[in-house]
Amino acid sequence: MATGTLRAFACSFSIILLLKLNAFSCQQFSISLQQPLDCGTESYFDISSLSCVKCGPNQVNSKSGLTCECQTGFRVLVSNGAFITCQQCPDANQGVTQDGYGCIQCPGNVGVNGKCQCPEGSVLVERDGSGNPLNEARCEACNATEPAFSAPDATGKRCVRCEDSFINSSQSCVCGTSNILAGGMCFPLNSLPTSVASNVIFGQLLFSNRTACQSLGNMCVMNMHSSSTINNDACGLYNTIYRATAAQGSSQDISYWRKNLPWLYYGEQLGLASRVLQNEPLPVGFSFKGAQKNTNIELRAAVYSVRGEFMRWENVGGGNLQLCPDTLPSQQSAFTFGTAYKQSCVLSVSELLIGYPEPVFYDVYLVIQKAQEEKRLLAVPLLNLNQQFNGQFTNQGSNMNNWYLTRRLMLVDTLSGRENSLSSSPRVIRVASNIKIGFQLVPNTQKGQVYPPLMTVAYSDILVTDPSTQTVTVSFSLEYTMDQEEARIKTDIALGVLGGVAVVHSLLKTASWKRRIASPLIDLQTIMKFLVFYAGDLANVFFIITVGTGLYWLIFFKAQQFVSVLLPLPAQEERFVVYVGCAFALKTVQFLHKLFVQLSVDIFFIDWERPRGKSSKHVEGSGEAKSQASPVSIWRTYFVANEWNEIQTIRKINPTFQVITVLFFLEVVGFSNLALRDPLSNLRRSPEAYTPPYSLILRYGVASAVWLCIGLIQMIFFTVLHERFVEDKIRQFVDLCSISNISVLLLSHRCFGYYIHGRSVHGHADTNMDEMNTNLKREARNGPSRLVDASANPCEQSTKAYHTMNRFLGSVIDHAHREMDYIVKDKLLFERLIGMEFIEPLDKSIFYNDDSHSFADVIFYGNEAVLLIFDTLFFCVVDLGSQNFILAAVLTYVQQLVGDEEEGKKEEEEDEGKKEEEEGKKEEEEEEGKKEEEEGKKEEEDGMRDEEEGKKGRGGGGKER
Amino acid sequence: MATGTLRAFACSFSIILLLKLNAFSCQQFSISLQQPLDCGTESYFDISSLSCVKCGPNQVNSKSGLTCECQTGFRVLVSNGAFITCQQCPDANQGVTQDGYGCIQCPGNVGVNGKCQCPEGSVLVERDGSGNPLNEARCEACNATEPAFSAPDATGKRCVRCEDSFINSSQSCVCGTSNILAGGMCFPLNSLPTSVASNVIFGQLLFSNRTACQSLGNMCVMNMHSSSTINNDACGLYNTIYRATAAQGSSQDISYWRKNLPWLYYGEQLGLASRVLQNEPLPVGFSFKGAQKNTNIELRAAVYSVRGEFMRWENVGGGNLQLCPDTLPSQQSAFTFGTAYKQSCVLSVSELLIGYPEPVFYDVYLVIQKAQEEKRLLAVPLLNLNQQFNGQFTNQGSNMNNWYLTRRLMLVDTLSGRENSLSSSPRVIRVASNIKIGFQLVPNTQKGQVYPPLMTVAYSDILVTDPSTQTVTVSFSLEYTMDQEEARIKTDIALGVLGGVAVVHSLLKTASWKRRIASPLIDLQTIMKFLVFYAGDLANVFFIITVGTGLYWLIFFKAQQFVSVLLPLPAQEERFVVYVGCAFALKTVQFLHKLFVQLSVDIFFIDWERPRGKSSKHVEGSGEAKSQASPVSIWRTYFVANEWNEIQTIRKINPTFQVITVLFFLEVVGFSNLALRDPLSNLRRSPEAYTPPYSLILRYGVASAVWLCIGLIQMIFFTVLHERFVEDKIRQFVDLCSISNISVLLLSHRCFGYYIHGRSVHGHADTNMDEMNTNLKREARNGPSRLVDASANPCEQSTKAYHTMNRFLGSVIDHAHREMDYIVKDKLLFERLIGMEFIEPLDKSIFYNDDSHSFADVIFYGNEAVLLIFDTLFFCVVDLGSQNFILAAVLTYVQQLVGDEEEGKKEEEEDEGKKEEEEGKKEEEEEEGKKEEEEGKKEEEDGMRDEEEGKKGRGGGGKER
Repeated sequence: MATGTLRAFACSFSIILLLKLNAFSCQQFSISLQQPLDCGTESYFDISSLSCVKCGPNQVNSKSGLTCECQTGFRVLVSNGAFITCQQCPDANQGVTQDGYGCIQCPGNVGVNGKCQCPEGSVLVERDGSGNPLNEARCEACNATEPAFSAPDATGKRCVRCEDSFINSSQSCVCGTSNILAGGMCFPLNSLPTSVASNVIFGQLLFSNRTACQSLGNMCVMNMHSSSTINNDACGLYNTIYRATAAQGSSQDISYWRKNLPWLYYGEQLGLASRVLQNEPLPVGFSFKGAQKNTNIELRAAVYSVRGEFMRWENVGGGNLQLCPDTLPSQQSAFTFGTAYKQSCVLSVSELLIGYPEPVFYDVYLVIQKAQEEKRLLAVPLLNLNQQFNGQFTNQGSNMNNWYLTRRLMLVDTLSGRENSLSSSPRVIRVASNIKIGFQLVPNTQKGQVYPPLMTVAYSDILVTDPSTQTVTVSFSLEYTMDQEEARIKTDIALGVLGGVAVVHSLLKTASWKRRIASPLIDLQTIMKFLVFYAGDLANVFFIITVGTGLYWLIFFKAQQFVSVLLPLPAQEERFVVYVGCAFALKTVQFLHKLFVQLSVDIFFIDWERPRGKSSKHVEGSGEAKSQASPVSIWRTYFVANEWNEIQTIRKINPTFQVITVLFFLEVVGFSNLALRDPLSNLRRSPEAYTPPYSLILRYGVASAVWLCIGLIQMIFFTVLHERFVEDKIRQFVDLCSISNISVLLLSHRCFGYYIHGRSVHGHADTNMDEMNTNLKREARNGPSRLVDASANPCEQSTKAYHTMNRFLGSVIDHAHREMDYIVKDKLLFERLIGMEFIEPLDKSIFYNDDSHSFADVIFYGNEAVLLIFDTLFFCVVDLGSQNFILAAVLTYVQQLVGDEEEGKKEEEEDEGKKEEEEGKKEEEEEEGKKEEEEGKKEEEDGMRDEEEGKKGRGGGGKER
Repeated sequence: MATGTLRAFACSFSIILLLKLNAFSCQQFSISLQQPLDCGTESYFDISSLSCVKCGPNQVNSKSGLTCECQTGFRVLVSNGAFITCQQCPDANQGVTQDGYGCIQCPGNVGVNGKCQCPEGSVLVERDGSGNPLNEARCEACNATEPAFSAPDATGKRCVRCEDSFINSSQSCVCGTSNILAGGMCFPLNSLPTSVASNVIFGQLLFSNRTACQSLGNMCVMNMHSSSTINNDACGLYNTIYRATAAQGSSQDISYWRKNLPWLYYGEQLGLASRVLQNEPLPVGFSFKGAQKNTNIELRAAVYSVRGEFMRWENVGGGNLQLCPDTLPSQQSAFTFGTAYKQSCVLSVSELLIGYPEPVFYDVYLVIQKAQEEKRLLAVPLLNLNQQFNGQFTNQGSNMNNWYLTRRLMLVDTLSGRENSLSSSPRVIRVASNIKIGFQLVPNTQKGQVYPPLMTVAYSDILVTDPSTQTVTVSFSLEYTMDQEEARIKTDIALGVLGGVAVVHSLLKTASWKRRIASPLIDLQTIMKFLVFYAGDLANVFFIITVGTGLYWLIFFKAQQFVSVLLPLPAQEERFVVYVGCAFALKTVQFLHKLFVQLSVDIFFIDWERPRGKSSKHVEGSGEAKSQASPVSIWRTYFVANEWNEIQTIRKINPTFQVITVLFFLEVVGFSNLALRDPLSNLRRSPEAYTPPYSLILRYGVASAVWLCIGLIQMIFFTVLHERFVEDKIRQFVDLCSISNISVLLLSHRCFGYYIHGRSVHGHADTNMDEMNTNLKREARNGPSRLVDASANPCEQSTKAYHTMNRFLGSVIDHAHREMDYIVKDKLLFERLIGMEFIEPLDKSIFYNDDSHSFADVIFYGNEAVLLIFDTLFFCVVDLGSQNFILAAVLTYVQQLVGDEEEGKKEEEEDEGKKEEEEGKKEEEEEEGKKEEEEGKKEEEDGMRDEEEGKKGRGGGGKER
C-alpha cells in the first residue's frame, strides 16, 4: 500500500511538474536577437535556429556569414552540403583549386587567397579538356592577334573573342599606345575630347555602342542639363557630338532630335520656349461633361536605365513619377483634367537609398488620341529649375523667353554621389523634390483647347550624414491656369461704374437726411453722415461684385461642358479676398450706424381715451369718499408699449434657422464639396478618393449663394405665406393701436418721423369685455381690413358707421388749431423710389399716406436687406479666414445673439420696471408741449377717414417746422 | 530697282515661310507610338528614336527586339557595335561559332540555330587553350568518374566538378538507376518518400542542403500548413523529417523547433493554443502616459526567400506586412498600443504580379526590452484560417482549444500557381487578404499586462483571367480586447436595481395622480398612466446607465496611465446601442405625454377689480346719454394672458445656444477626437496622421457629457445669475398678476391645480398713470419682496399699511362662504420630496403655501430635466445612427423648433385675435359657476397676508372636492 501511494504521489507530482513546465513554456518561446555580422570569424549564422554556431576545425565563416568555408590553404575533403571537412594541402607550394576541392601545384606563386594566380592576359588551366585534374596547373597566354583575337573571359578561365572596339581600333585585343582605353573599351586617339575622359566617372558602366549615347545623355541629365563653355562635362560632350553629327539628320522629323542621340535640348534660340508652349494648342480639347467627356490626361514615358538601356514604355500614373505613397485611385486622380492635384510628403533618406539603388530616366509624352486616328505621342517639354549655363541658373526667372526647355527626367539619383567605387554608399543624393505639370488654357476657347503642357522640376541635393533620421520633402502637383487679365479688367470696370452710382445715391440720401433734420449747413456732421451712407452703398457694391464673381466661377467652372474657364490660382485670389474684406468692413460701419439710429428714435404713445364719468375715491387716511373724474386706465398704453418692444427685433427671417439650415446644406448635404478645385459637381465624395484643396472664391460663392437663397426663401415664406395666413406681427401691432385707442408717434429725425394713427372709431376702448367684444364683432362685420367701403356694405351698417364717424369727426374738428395746419397727400412714385421728399414744408406740415407700414424702417423688420447682407458677409469672412463652415456658423450665431442683446438693452429700458416712468415722462412732455399741435394734426388726418382705412392704423411721414 | 524689290519680296517671303515653319514646329514634336514587339522580324526597335528601323541584309531582330543579328547560317563579318554586316558560311556543313563571328566544321550535325551541337555529358570545343580557333570543332566527353568527378557546366563549354549530392550518393557524376534524380540533385533511393518527388514542383529551385529544409518549410507554408494522412505533400514530408530527426534536439531550447528545420508548428496537443496564448502575460506592461510611457509594439521578422535563403532581419512597420500603400507615419501608427488600426484597400492583380514575382516568408517576433536587459524576441504564433487537416478546416471555429497554431507567414504567392515552367505566368495567385494582430489584456491588471499577441491570417485564391482588371481586397488590422463579461454583469445589476426603484417611483406617482383626480378605481386609464410614468422613469434608468457607461470608458480608457481597460469591440457595442435606443424611445413617450398634459391644462383669470362709479353712455341710435356703472377695463386681463402665453416655452436654458455650443465644442474645438479608438487624448489631430475609427460608446459618452455640462452651466447661469440680476420671467409674471389685480387659477388635474394670488393690496389697479405710479412707489418703499415686515418698517408706513390691509381683509371676510371652506397649510418636507399629498381633502379644500413657483410645472420651465434629457438623447441617437454631429445638431434644432411650434399652437389659440372670446368664455364660466367658491377661497387665503408676502403672488396646490 505504501508503495502504491508513493507511486500515485510520484505520478501526480510529475503531472504537476509537467503542467508547471507547460505553464512556463510560453516564456520559453523567446529567443535572443543575433545578427549574421555579430557572429565573429569562427562562427556562422545558422539560418534555421537564427543563432550563431561555431564552425568546424580549420574553418572560417564566409563573406555572407551564413556558412563556413575552409581557411586559406585548406581544401574541402568531404561535403554533405551543410557541413564540410577541411584538410590542409600536403605540399607548401601547392594551391587550392578554384573549386576548392583539390590541391594543385601552381605554375607561379600562390595568391593571398591560397589559390594559383596567372599574369594578365593568361588563363589558369587546372583540368584537361575531358575534366581530368592536372597534376600541375598551367598558365596559358591568350593569342590576341588575328585570327584568334582572344582574351581571357571575365572569370579568367577561358580565352574568348575580345571586344569589337579593340579589334576595330587596333586589329588586335591589345588597345595599344596609339589608342585610348576607357570604360573597358578601346577608342582611336582623336575621336574623343581628351579632357572628357576624366569626367567619365562611371568607368564600370558597360559602354556598348547601342546604349552609349543614351547613357551619355543620362549623365547629362544627372548633371542637371548644365553645361559651360569652359569645362567639358557630360553635357558638353553631348553637345560636341550633337554638333559633330549634324549630317546624320534627325529622328522622327524633330529637328532637335539627332539620329542615334537622345533628345535632351530644345534649341537655344531666344523665345523658343514661348513658341513651343504657346503657339499652337493641342489638337484635342478637354470637356468636363456630356457624351464627349474627356478629362483623361494620358501620359506615357519611355524608361531608360542608367546604362542607357531601353527598359519599357510606361503609363505615367501608377506612382512612377509620384514619389509619395498613396492608393492607386488617389494617385490616378492626378491625371483628371481640371483637378488641382497636390501631393506632398516627407520621405526618409534610408528608404530612398533602398528603393532607388539606381536612377531611372523618363522621356515623358502626352498621348493624343483623335477620333479614328492612331495614337500620337506629343513630347512634353521639361523646365529644369536647376539647369545652369556657365554657373548661372537659366530657368528660375519668370520671363518665359529666357527659358531653356529640355527633355528627360529622373527622380532619385543615388549613383553620382558615390565616391571611389559604385559599391560605396553615396555621400550625396539628388531627389526631384518638386514636380509640377502645368496646363494653360487657350484664351477665349470654347472647345477646351489647351497649349502643350509644361513639366517643371526642381531637384534637391541631400548630403547623406545619417540616412535613418534624414528626411526630404517631395511634392507632385498638377496646375491649370488661364489668362485672368480679362476678368480683372471687367471687375475693375464694374467696380468703377457701381462706385460712381454709389456716390450719387449716398449724396441723395445725405440731402434727404439734411432736409429731414431741417439743417441747411454743410458741417462736419453732414460729411460724416455722407461717409456713413457712402460706406453702406460701397459695401453693397463690393458685395454685388464679390458674389457675382463667386457665382460666375461656380457656374462657369463647374457647369461647363467644354472647358472654357479655369479657376484662378490661390495667389490670384488675393484681390478677391481684399474685396470681401472691404465689403465686410464697410457693411459693419453701416450696421452699427443703423443700430445707433434705431436706438435713438423718440417714441410717443398718445392715448385718445377720455374719462367716462365720476368715481368715488377714498382720500387716504380720512376714510371719506370723494367724487372725482374716474381715471383713464394706463394698461392699454402698457400693452401697446410692451408689444412695441417685442416687434423691435422681429425680422423677415429666422436668423437661427438661417444659420442651422445653411450649415446643414453646406456640411451635411455636401454643398461645400462644390468648392473643391476639380470639375466634379457631385455633393458626395468617397472618403478614399483624393480630395483636392478648396478654392476660396468657390467657397465664398457657394456659401453666399446658399445663404442668400435660404434667406430669400425664408423672406418669401414669411412675407407671402406666414404673414398672410398665420401671423403678421407688424400688422397686428397696428391693429392693436387701433383697438386700444392709442396712436404712436415715432420721431426718427428732428423734423421727420412716422405716425401710426390708432384712434378708435368706437370712441372708448377702455371698457369691459362685453363692450370690447361688441366693438370687435362690429369691426369683424365691417370686413377685416376696411371699415367703410360704402358701396359694398349693407345699409344699416353704413348708417351706424356714419353716426359713429360723424360724432368722431365732429369732436376732431372742434380741437383743430389753425396756426399749426397741415396737409395730407400721397407720395409721388419717384419720391418713394429714392426715399426723399421733394416739397419742403415751409408753411404747413405734410402728412403722406402710407399703406406699406414704412414705420418698420426704424426697427429690424424694415432693414432686412442690411442685416441679411451683414450676416452673409460675417459668415463668409469667418469662413475665408478659417476655412471652417462650422466655426463660421457658430460665430455668426453668437454675433446675432449679441446683436439681439444690444437691441434688448433698449427694450429693457422701456420694460415693465422702469417703463412707466419713462413713458409717463414722454407722455407728459408730449401732452404739455405738443399736445395741441399733435391733436390738431391727428384731427385733420382723421378727417380723411371717409376715403381711407378706418380701423387700420397707418404710418405717415410727417414734417414739422 | 525691280530686282531689289524682288529680292526684298523674296526675303520677306522666306521669313514668312520660316515663321510658318516655326509655327507648325510644335505639332512636329509629336511621334507615333511604337513598341518593340510591333516591329516584326525584319526590323528592330531603335531605342534612341523610339521607332522601328529596318535591319540590314541577311539579318533578323533579336529576341528582345532591340538589335539585329545575323540570320541562321550567317556569321558576323564586321561589327562596330551598333551595326553589323553578315556573311553566309561558305560550306553547307559548317556551323556558326558560339560567338557568332566565325564558321567552323561541326563534329556532328548543325543545330536548328545554325551552331554545332554535342551529345549530353560532352562539351563543345571551338578554340584551343590559347584561344586559337580550330578548323573543326570537337565534342569532348567529361570524365564523370573519380578522381575527375566532372560534368559540363551550365553553358556547356567546360567540364567542371559536379554536384556533391551526385558524388556522395553514387561516387560518380551520374546519378545511376539506384538513386533518384530530383531537382538537379541526386538522392539515395530510400531517403525520400517516393510519392513526394512528384509533388516537388519547383524543380528549378536550387536545392542546396543549407537552405533545403527552409525551402521545404516554405513549400509547406505555401500549402497553407495543410497536411493529410493520405497524401505525402510538402507538409507531410516536413512532418516525416520532423519525426525522424527527433534525436537531433531542438533549437534555442524551444521544444517545437527542431534543429536544422524551420519552426512551423506548435504541438498538436488539445488546448495547447489557449495555454500558449493565455497562460502567462508578457513580462513588460504597456502604459499610455507618464515617464514610463510604453505604447510601442516592436515587431521583427526573419525574412526568407522562397529558395530558403535567409535574407535579413526586418523591422515590421515600413509596409512589409501592410500591402496597402500609405505614408510611412500612417503605417507606423499601426504599431502604437491601443490604437485600433485597420487599413484596407483594393489592389490590382497586375500590380501584385509585378510587385511580388516571388513570395517572401516572414517569421515574426515581438521584441521585448526589459530595463537593463538585452532584447529578447518572443515568437508570435500564427493562426492560419486556411489551414486544413485531412480536408477539414481546423482553425475557423471560435473554440480556441481546437486551434493549431503555426509559424511563418507569406504575403503574396505568385509562384505555386505557375504551370509547367517557372517562366510561365501563374494561373492562380494566393494573397494574404486579411492579416490581424490581436492583443488581449490580462484580466484585472493594473500594470498594462497583456498576453502574447496572436497573428491571424486568411488567404484568398484568385484565378488569374485578366490581371489588368482583376482586383483583390486586402486588409491589415490590429485589435485590442479584454474580457467584457464583468462589465456586462455590473451593467445588468445596475439595471435591475434601478429598474426596481423606477417601478416604486412610478407607482407612487400613479397613486399621487389618482388622488389628484379623486378617482379610487384602478381602471385601464390608471394602468396606461402607470405605464407612461414607468416609461419616463425607465428612460431615466437607461439614460443614467448609458451615460455612466460612456463616461466610464471615456475616463478609464483615455485617462489611464498603465493600461487596465481596453474598449469593447464594435460587435460588443450592440447591447449599449440597444440601451440608448430604449432610453430614447421611452423618453419620447414621456415627452409627448408631458406635452399633451401641458396642452390640456385649464386656465382661469380672475379679475378682482370692481367698478369705481357711474359713467354716462350713449345709447346707440338715440343720441341720449344714460348713466350706468362704469365698466372694468379688460386690458389688464389681456396683458396677463399675453404674458402667460409668452412664458409657456420659457426654459432654464437657451436650446439653440445649447445646440450651437455643443456643436462648437465637438467639431470646432475637437472634442469629437476623444471618441477615436486610440489612447491619445489631444483635441487636435494632424490631417496626415492615421485616423482610427470611432467608438460608438465613446461618441455617446463625449456627446452626452458635453451636452449635459453645457446644459447645467446654462441652467446655473440662468437660475443663479441671469434670473437674479437680469431678468426672471416667472417672478415677473407673478408680480404682474399682483400689480394688475388679477389672480390665475391653473387646473392641471381634475381636483388639483395651482393658484397665483394676484389681488392688489391697493384696491384698484385699473387706474391712470398717476395713481399707478403712486401704487408702485408705495410698494417700492415697502421693500421689494415683502409688504408687511412689521418690525423693520418705519411707523407711519406700517400704520398706513394696517389701514389698507384692514379694509381689504374686512371685505374678504364679508364674502366668505362657510359651506366651501378651506384650510391653508405648509407642505411637509416628505410631501415635497415625493410630490404627493398625504392628507385627502374630505371636508375642506386645502391650500398649501408655496414660495418656489411650483406652478411652473405645467409649463416648459418646470420640466427642464425632461426636456434636457430628451434633447440629449435625441442628439445622441441621431449621431449614433449617422456618426455625424452636424446632422445631429441640425435635426435637434429642427425638433426643438417643431416642439415650440406645437406649443405655439396653443399660444395662438389664446392670441390676440381669438383670445378675447376664449378668455371671455372661460371667465364667464368661472364667474358664473365657480365664482363664489373661488372667491371664498381667495378671501380666506388673503387672510394669511399678515404673515405672508403681500405683493408677491404665490402659487399653491389646491384641492377641491
